[in-house]
Amino acid sequence: MADAHPFDAALALDPARDSGARRTWAGHTHPGWANMVGPYGGITAAVLLAAAQRHPAAQGEVLALTVNYAGAVADGAFEIDAEPVRTGGSTQHWSLVLRQGEAVAATASAVFVRRRETFDATDLPRPDAPPWHTLARREPDAPLAWLRRYDMRAVHGDWPGSAGFAAHRGDTLLRVWLQDDPPRPLDALALASMADAFYPRVWVHLGRVTPASTVSLSTYLHADAAALAALDSGPVLAEARAARIHRGFFDQDAALWSAQGTLLATSHQVVYFKD
Amino acid sequence: MADAHPFDAALALDPARDSGARRTWAGHTHPGWANMVGPYGGITAAVLLAAAQRHPAAQGEVLALTVNYAGAVADGAFEIDAEPVRTGGSTQHWSLVLRQGEAVAATASAVFVRRRETFDATDLPRPDAPPWHTLARREPDAPLAWLRRYDMRAVHGDWPGSAGFAAHRGDTLLRVWLQDDPPRPLDALALASMADAFYPRVWVHLGRVTPASTVSLSTYLHADAAALAALDSGPVLAEARAARIHRGFFDQDAALWSAQGTLLATSHQVVYFKD
Repeated sequence: MADAHPFDAALALDPARDSGARRTWAGHTHPGWANMVGPYGGITAAVLLAAAQRHPAAQGEVLALTVNYAGAVADGAFEIDAEPVRTGGSTQHWSLVLRQGEAVAATASAVFVRRRETFDATDLPRPDAPPWHTLARREPDAPLAWLRRYDMRAVHGDWPGSAGFAAHRGDTLLRVWLQDDPPRPLDALALASMADAFYPRVWVHLGRVTPASTVSLSTYLHADAAALAALDSGPVLAEARAARIHRGFFDQDAALWSAQGTLLATSHQVVYFKD
Repeated sequence: MADAHPFDAALALDPARDSGARRTWAGHTHPGWANMVGPYGGITAAVLLAAAQRHPAAQGEVLALTVNYAGAVADGAFEIDAEPVRTGGSTQHWSLVLRQGEAVAATASAVFVRRRETFDATDLPRPDAPPWHTLARREPDAPLAWLRRYDMRAVHGDWPGSAGFAAHRGDTLLRVWLQDDPPRPLDALALASMADAFYPRVWVHLGRVTPASTVSLSTYLHADAAALAALDSGPVLAEARAARIHRGFFDQDAALWSAQGTLLATSHQVVYFKD
């Protein structure tokens, strides 16, 4: 995997063992996705989804992915159990567990579906935004490897450490262009990871960076594999906002559109924070 | 339980057996919550949450609940396995499975937390609405028992079968007052159920009622038990809207506030539909 894209290298999984319908995969954290403590949460979401997608019994494509971050993932080896718990005509439900030694570091559920032609409507249109190429790329404000995995360009809101950050104090909305760096064709795995790429909304209220970590993250895919493949590597217009910050936790809603205006995914998370 | 509130009667669980940290509960669907096929999805979410809350190892109160509806729940007996998979200083992660015979009908995860005083902000303020007592109660348009479990009063949007329904064609927003009938003190269980009380958003686009069923539902609790207890039985102002309807599935976002304006919960689901 020496020549693999850093995203695909982080998603490398080797079959470890099978037990009935459950397949256990062996993986390893990737230094290119290092965050404050352990890996960036989005790459953990993506590798859990990959463990289901690559299971020999997988049917259809992902509609919903929920990841519960039960404890810090340590840099190093991990195992993922992937088990289809119910397969119906149009949906397949997955149970996923990421372990390091005896400790459960994350649990997840995924729903795979067979899509079919129906009525179609978008009730959350893509907001206006200046074209990607007219905006400046984020200069990472912290020496975190994962920040260099995305080319991020602010449309509304600004980055911690920038002059614009103070100017947006208390404004919950962050709207950005996102693209993998180096560019990589969009797929469900990429969106599962990008859905976690927003810095914690509580920072815009506090006006400073504080410890924060995602507790639970749910992402819904509104585009199928063929539609994503047609977008090549993006970029994606993405936004996030909070609803309530209260007693040590807050939520954060996100939406991701193609440059052409297609709603690709919506995502929701709750986050632990200190102040 | 002859005198129990229908909500509490539906949540009656008897310990069946223990296996290590996993406790298995025995329950039964309640005719007062019958939907088109099997029980209303909200009551299934609530009984899964109850199975974790009543586990002897439960710590703290619920922050996040995700329920995956893997197959139709048949009227009759069911069992729920409840297992704490990781307990930390401030969070406890639960894995839950609802079975009927050998079939998994639903899986769920819950995160329980210990809350503490921190910075507080609400970024999603309660919309204006005429007082509850000035509006007409919904007359159920279908002989579904669960519709009588809630006193629902439309603030924006209207019910299938009403004149107002056609007038709101294509308007994704439904805003309603909700209260248990008979009234019951609000708690996390009540909100977990109310979060599913909106009729499918695709119906306002199609202008008609079609088969639809929730695939995955995630609810975040933004109020603690003490704050909910102070609200007595509500009512709650609640709204729902969709983001995208596409190839057999759509999403639906919801928010629930107290009459006084406190954001109590936000909730998100993806739904299967026919057209």
